[in-house]
Amino acid sequence: MEIQVAVAKVGKWATSESGDTLEMVERPHGGLSFVLVDGQRSGRSAKAISNLVARKAISLLAEGVRDGAAARAAHDYLFTHRGGKVSATLNILSVDLTSNTLVISRNSRCPAIVITADGELRVLDEPSQPVGVRRGTKPQITELPLTAGTVIVIYTDGLEAAGVRSICALDVPAAVRELMSKDGASTQQLADGLLQQALELEEGRPHDDISVLVLCVLEREGDGGVRRLAVQLPI
Amino acid sequence: MEIQVAVAKVGKWATSESGDTLEMVERPHGGLSFVLVDGQRSGRSAKAISNLVARKAISLLAEGVRDGAAARAAHDYLFTHRGGKVSATLNILSVDLTSNTLVISRNSRCPAIVITADGELRVLDEPSQPVGVRRGTKPQITELPLTAGTVIVIYTDGLEAAGVRSICALDVPAAVRELMSKDGASTQQLADGLLQQALELEEGRPHDDISVLVLCVLEREGDGGVRRLAVQLPI
Repeated sequence: MEIQVAVAKVGKWATSESGDTLEMVERPHGGLSFVLVDGQRSGRSAKAISNLVARKAISLLAEGVRDGAAARAAHDYLFTHRGGKVSATLNILSVDLTSNTLVISRNSRCPAIVITADGELRVLDEPSQPVGVRRGTKPQITELPLTAGTVIVIYTDGLEAAGVRSICALDVPAAVRELMSKDGASTQQLADGLLQQALELEEGRPHDDISVLVLCVLEREGDGGVRRLAVQLPI
Repeated sequence: MEIQVAVAKVGKWATSESGDTLEMVERPHGGLSFVLVDGQRSGRSAKAISNLVARKAISLLAEGVRDGAAARAAHDYLFTHRGGKVSATLNILSVDLTSNTLVISRNSRCPAIVITADGELRVLDEPSQPVGVRRGTKPQITELPLTAGTVIVIYTDGLEAAGVRSICALDVPAAVRELMSKDGASTQQLADGLLQQALELEEGRPHDDISVLVLCVLEREGDGGVRRLAVQLPI
């Protein structure tokens, strides 16, 4: 099998920095974790918050700390550091090669979307609090088998708020379903397609930072076990 | 401008894990850093070492620590932890958006290859020690302006040792020059092409872990400031 992950990420219109932070880290027992954080407000102050939360989470995950504990620690750290006055949403998506599972941790009002191997679309939207403001905040954790055909989409609230000020908000599950129905859509095309729909609703000038992460588990054999990473960073 | 980075990475033939670790982290003042570590020997023990060194480096870089200090700290940490008995090579490549420079830190006998904006190929091969074994080890640091047309290639020693047991070792600078001469070769094609040549010399069964990282600074405007990340992980 092969895991493919694609991220597309854009900052709020006319701000120098996105307040969203996406980090990736290798799990010492095998696999990868992706951490997506949306800091309260936008611009530089939001970036400082999301960087702080993401940094705490990845440094723990890199030491082999389990996802639930890393999310709790990231909350406690922000809560202590900022006296419960600043919030951030936190998603952790892990490919855990020890348990052969996909682990989704949510501290966000945004759902995660899962398409299972048999094509069923599930919206993971159990009530969940952002980190940083309420003592004892815990993540919502969902563990799925690492099965070919599985697709997971996580995103920050800028995606589902796209268009809400003018036409109508983006229906993310419907958009995922539509994009998936196109034969042979690549992981990158799914991520780009979702971001593109949001940007169209916002007429190219997003009112908030938008980040989309798509993970697909594919049947195909990776060629010769080569791992690849590609980054595009406009400056 | 747009920065593109591509990594291609493969483990030694018939080992479950690559002893090389590649991590990427956002710089809190703007930009990205890539950390490439090759732990002594191969397999699980090498992975544990490279994970330890990479983790120390990225956690410091994520806090805003400068590259030279992060490399020194990673050395001191491994030296202290393993009593000077275990070595690792360490490369840090940073896109620093505060100073608008590319920063290359080498603790490795492998050179870094730079193609400057005017097409000149430079081999950065000042003598440099791996981390972990000699007290006071320092990185070799090169800072380059962030100019469109610049290409940087860093790699672990498995690349230049490819073929050395049978035919002849891969001439990495010559291979880079040849691949660059193909019009319109993408960043990913450069990384894949170098790995491919090494794998051919090793008849598909590499005697060592091989990792290649290519960074290109392109003239083109990134479309609407969208940042992208793509990962392929065969399992």
